[in-house]
Amino acid sequence: MKTQVCIIGAGPAGLLLGHLLRAEGVDCVILERRTPDYVLSRIRAGVLENITVSLMERLGLDARLKAEGLPHDGFNLADGERLIRIDIKALTGQQVVVYGQTELTQDLMDAAEARDLQVIYEAADTALHDVESDAPYVTYNKGDTPQRIDCRIIVGCDGFYGPTRQAIPASAGQEYERVYPFGWLGILADVPPCNHELIYANHERGFALASMRSPTRSRYYIDVPLTERVENWSDDRLWDELAIRLGPEAAANMTRGPALEKSIAPLRSYVFAPMRHGSLMLCGDAAHIVPPTGAKGLNLAASDVHYAAAALTSFFKANDADAIAAYSDTALARVWKCERFSWSLTKLMHRFPDDGPFERAMQVAELDYIATSVAAQTSIAENYVGLPV
Amino acid sequence: MKTQVCIIGAGPAGLLLGHLLRAEGVDCVILERRTPDYVLSRIRAGVLENITVSLMERLGLDARLKAEGLPHDGFNLADGERLIRIDIKALTGQQVVVYGQTELTQDLMDAAEARDLQVIYEAADTALHDVESDAPYVTYNKGDTPQRIDCRIIVGCDGFYGPTRQAIPASAGQEYERVYPFGWLGILADVPPCNHELIYANHERGFALASMRSPTRSRYYIDVPLTERVENWSDDRLWDELAIRLGPEAAANMTRGPALEKSIAPLRSYVFAPMRHGSLMLCGDAAHIVPPTGAKGLNLAASDVHYAAAALTSFFKANDADAIAAYSDTALARVWKCERFSWSLTKLMHRFPDDGPFERAMQVAELDYIATSVAAQTSIAENYVGLPV
Repeated sequence: MKTQVCIIGAGPAGLLLGHLLRAEGVDCVILERRTPDYVLSRIRAGVLENITVSLMERLGLDARLKAEGLPHDGFNLADGERLIRIDIKALTGQQVVVYGQTELTQDLMDAAEARDLQVIYEAADTALHDVESDAPYVTYNKGDTPQRIDCRIIVGCDGFYGPTRQAIPASAGQEYERVYPFGWLGILADVPPCNHELIYANHERGFALASMRSPTRSRYYIDVPLTERVENWSDDRLWDELAIRLGPEAAANMTRGPALEKSIAPLRSYVFAPMRHGSLMLCGDAAHIVPPTGAKGLNLAASDVHYAAAALTSFFKANDADAIAAYSDTALARVWKCERFSWSLTKLMHRFPDDGPFERAMQVAELDYIATSVAAQTSIAENYVGLPV
Repeated sequence: MKTQVCIIGAGPAGLLLGHLLRAEGVDCVILERRTPDYVLSRIRAGVLENITVSLMERLGLDARLKAEGLPHDGFNLADGERLIRIDIKALTGQQVVVYGQTELTQDLMDAAEARDLQVIYEAADTALHDVESDAPYVTYNKGDTPQRIDCRIIVGCDGFYGPTRQAIPASAGQEYERVYPFGWLGILADVPPCNHELIYANHERGFALASMRSPTRSRYYIDVPLTERVENWSDDRLWDELAIRLGPEAAANMTRGPALEKSIAPLRSYVFAPMRHGSLMLCGDAAHIVPPTGAKGLNLAASDVHYAAAALTSFFKANDADAIAAYSDTALARVWKCERFSWSLTKLMHRFPDDGPFERAMQVAELDYIATSVAAQTSIAENYVGLPV
């Protein structure tokens, strides 16, 4: 098979990019290792920035998002008894939209066939070849049959553990990484959320987050040591802990229910730079990971895709090779700022095992400062709704 | 001798407090271990916030400050070739004033006699007694003669190493501390400054600060390992290093000259809380230390003094014991925010030996973000000019 762009990975980043390219008349094929159902079963982010919403709008695929998504005007930072509301609407004029990543992925999947976007699922053993040349190709197995796609550009949208970043020689880039000494234990349940806006809590027993996917589906998290096992956390134990960490008011409004999903995810900050090597471009988790504090992961993938789609369109329609060459620097400028925000919000809202009384006092002082400064709140709000693209 | 308030320490904090109390008709005596000349010889801060200027104005002792002080509308953060100007005037409507701490101290000293402010210099072996009672007293030796001052309140303005904080039992408070893995090597020279505004530089070889005391007197710093000795730094070597770290433009405008003073000071964040114990109140360095990044030390002492003077005036003139009881919480609320700012600016502008590529990338990302965000610049500016008192 021959195409202009071979996209590896049919998660939201790959599907968004595929749709954007097809809308511009650029040929592409998406290869996905898993089945559509598996892709949709992955419980991930649920807070969309303007960039993500606007890409769905541009594609005309925002009908369900507009109908079912929950626009949020603010969110809350809790420190013990205190609740600091960040009024993102008043401070920035923008909102975020709560809409599950699985819903977004579903919308993109559903539209693929009608828009002539080819997605090949269950593509096994994907391997990249000649990425440093102008004629790279991708091999994979479909069932027992070896396949090959020749293309001009390969785009890696295959997440942190996918094959694309691995295809870049270590000497051709640099890894930046910080691993955090805890993970997030999350629970998804079909119960109404305890609060109409998100609450990030820094409690003496640890971090907690009250979030949601819809008016009837809640998503909660606590942080746990990396050695913790999900088997140690019955639903009851987890609800009890959430009630303590989120504080009496949230606890009073919290509806408990059986876990639809319960898992522990480690927290990591990671960047691989540059985000392009020869004819291979990386988007989203394939190039960088943020800790989930601040809900930047999916949105950062969306902004990468925005830049990548623009560069690829210029390249294929206006023969502009500079656009491809500039992609990494353009995308990284925003990536680094989002990495900074996610890292700083993670540091502000978690208790780190190595922190002493001074470091804890600095958290309290920062929260005190935020509570009283419009400038500080504006800075948080503009990062939360998404920095300019 | 008997008085209402015995102030320990005749640095700027003690003198400011003494003048404010005398202006309100409260009796006080200041004890100082050193001679006036020694006090004036200590080279310290030189950037005054509005709170410090306004206290001098209130006392009518601002004539020389107004005539000779240099109002600054901004300052600069340098990162390699890049200079980010923080336009504090445009962002906050306020300025800071460059006026050496020694000048301020001189003005306060000169006015003492005419305003009936008694300062006893060369008071040796000062010791505090019965601070938990309503009748504390202070003993000291003047020459070979033991002396005693009975009072109602003792105020410690005696700096980090003075006797007042030591008079509080360890069990009555908590220490918060962070020691930094470097010190500042400073040089004072009678040469014009290289730039009309301060430059804080984060260079790959380390931190540098270009500051000034007047149009003809410059103050520069670099950071050095704690093991470094001032003897290893000839004037020439220090000027050479400054020229590298401050960058080509500043270097081209830098006038070299012999050091009037050259010394290494360690960097420390420290808070003792509460700032009152019984009849003893602490102001300034006696209770807390900030690293000099951001020039908060003297200004933080001034805001403590502002709160202490108000509390003591209420107490002695309106019999309001609650004012004394509230002093620590009132002062600490601002202290902690200033500690946070000094700590965060120190972290942003220094290379820490334990930092890896990710932490360095976070510094660059924060500087990138600051360079492009009015909210981030406003947050820095409002801290730099001084948070509301």
